[in-house]
Amino acid sequence: MEHMQEIIEQKAEEVEQIIRRWLPEEKGMQHTVLEAMNYSILAGGKRLRPILMYEVYRMLGGNGREIQPLMAAVEMIHTYSLVHDDLPAMDNDEYRRGRKTTHTVYGEAMGILAGDGLLNLAWETAMKAFFLEGPKDKPEEEAARMRRIATAVEVLARKAGVYGMIGGQTADIEAEQAQQTDMEQLLFIHEHKTAALIQASMMIGAILAGADEEQISRMEKCAYDIGIAFQIQDDILDVTGSMEELGKPIGSDERNHKQTYVTIRGLEDSTAEVKRLSGEAIEILSSMDGDSSFLQVLAEYLIHRRK
Amino acid sequence: MEHMQEIIEQKAEEVEQIIRRWLPEEKGMQHTVLEAMNYSILAGGKRLRPILMYEVYRMLGGNGREIQPLMAAVEMIHTYSLVHDDLPAMDNDEYRRGRKTTHTVYGEAMGILAGDGLLNLAWETAMKAFFLEGPKDKPEEEAARMRRIATAVEVLARKAGVYGMIGGQTADIEAEQAQQTDMEQLLFIHEHKTAALIQASMMIGAILAGADEEQISRMEKCAYDIGIAFQIQDDILDVTGSMEELGKPIGSDERNHKQTYVTIRGLEDSTAEVKRLSGEAIEILSSMDGDSSFLQVLAEYLIHRRK
Repeated sequence: MEHMQEIIEQKAEEVEQIIRRWLPEEKGMQHTVLEAMNYSILAGGKRLRPILMYEVYRMLGGNGREIQPLMAAVEMIHTYSLVHDDLPAMDNDEYRRGRKTTHTVYGEAMGILAGDGLLNLAWETAMKAFFLEGPKDKPEEEAARMRRIATAVEVLARKAGVYGMIGGQTADIEAEQAQQTDMEQLLFIHEHKTAALIQASMMIGAILAGADEEQISRMEKCAYDIGIAFQIQDDILDVTGSMEELGKPIGSDERNHKQTYVTIRGLEDSTAEVKRLSGEAIEILSSMDGDSSFLQVLAEYLIHRRK
Repeated sequence: MEHMQEIIEQKAEEVEQIIRRWLPEEKGMQHTVLEAMNYSILAGGKRLRPILMYEVYRMLGGNGREIQPLMAAVEMIHTYSLVHDDLPAMDNDEYRRGRKTTHTVYGEAMGILAGDGLLNLAWETAMKAFFLEGPKDKPEEEAARMRRIATAVEVLARKAGVYGMIGGQTADIEAEQAQQTDMEQLLFIHEHKTAALIQASMMIGAILAGADEEQISRMEKCAYDIGIAFQIQDDILDVTGSMEELGKPIGSDERNHKQTYVTIRGLEDSTAEVKRLSGEAIEILSSMDGDSSFLQVLAEYLIHRRK
């Protein structure tokens, strides 16, 4: 496990360098929102989504730079969703990853604007992919390249939006307000709030590498498994983790009367489901062309992670 | 004036029909956020931005359908910015256009999510332009078409984001918190918070019609004039308008200790500046190729509008 942690941290560092290149400089009359955006995105996340995107891209033979703005974009979208989720009107969280949340430091108005800024910057950044390294004297290749990028950005928008992540956040908020959730709602929430953006990441890696429909769809299924497994593991850690490891108080889900996979099915069944999903994800990965060994390690790691 | 109002309403109706085609159906487990989004966007705005986009596009010879998703996208972005601006942590407005604001009807959490949903749907919708009517057997034309769309979407993202509208909202919030604004800040706020999205609209119309750099840049300048004139007129109406006409209490800027062009320069200078800017905008329009008569009427109308 120590070794896996190390490999993942190394990959995360590589991805970190790529993401930082796309972050805004903190200057101009709007510098406060730029500071708040950088504060949020540099809070030390796992970079799981861009890592998955990058690794799928490389596994399937991708070797260009146009993946990079998309990697930054998906992390910006993930980060904005956390910033808005933490707001007083939403989950009202003062801490995340052991640091004060964005609105706690910069105020609520700036928290809203920093989230909006990150979401919009994600699209601004994603669009840069069109203007990188096009074979301008080969119109056929250039048209195909731009069609791949358009497809990738469209997938990101769909999986991030009301038919993806925002749809999941909506169902989540309503389930909390109703103070009850059944398994159907819970799986809708997990699929949309968590798995959708992981699906986008892995699908985009495949799309930009020039994969065919069937491979893209296998990545969508694999990412579903990883996403749901990841979320159930998160619910497990909320119960079993400690303040020190997670950087937030134990059992915040229970404190917030939030029903999770664990509160509905129990710890044992939840752990078994994480294992089953991860096993299925690994099976899909090992069936792909190209070297999927790191991705398999990563999927495996999700079972055992402690934070 | 009656006549102009009628022409604009007629254009607005045409644009309305186009925008509605891109709005989400209110179904699924996330139906509440979809309802809140439609509630916001169907609150009866002037549709100024998509009208300007469409008219510039037609003036410069555009006749395709790919302008349509961009028209819907800019209105979604404009609407999300109003929804978030109205939130308790921002301007805390209970009414807009004579109707309860989105968070007042749907709650604060859903107000945040409806705004996020509209912003994201804007990008999802804009991306659809790539997949409309491409001449797939003519790769050179297809590559050029996709490059135009990518340029248009990139402009929209830049003008909507931290270097555009969100940058202006940030400076606005900070000026309000500091309870003082000088002319430099105020012009930064007006240019970014208001003019930027109007610039994007007119530039996109030109870009998608295949205009050259110089024409695009003239549209950017013209839109700056219209945007600033529009905003100063808004500040004038805040002082001179009535509850019945505006759908909100008189003098809300003053009530919120908000400094505006009018509070700094006075009503007479502000009115003169609106006239000067509109005159300049009309001069630019009349210098363009193509029939700019409606756009001239519209710019003129901005001087005399009462709501």
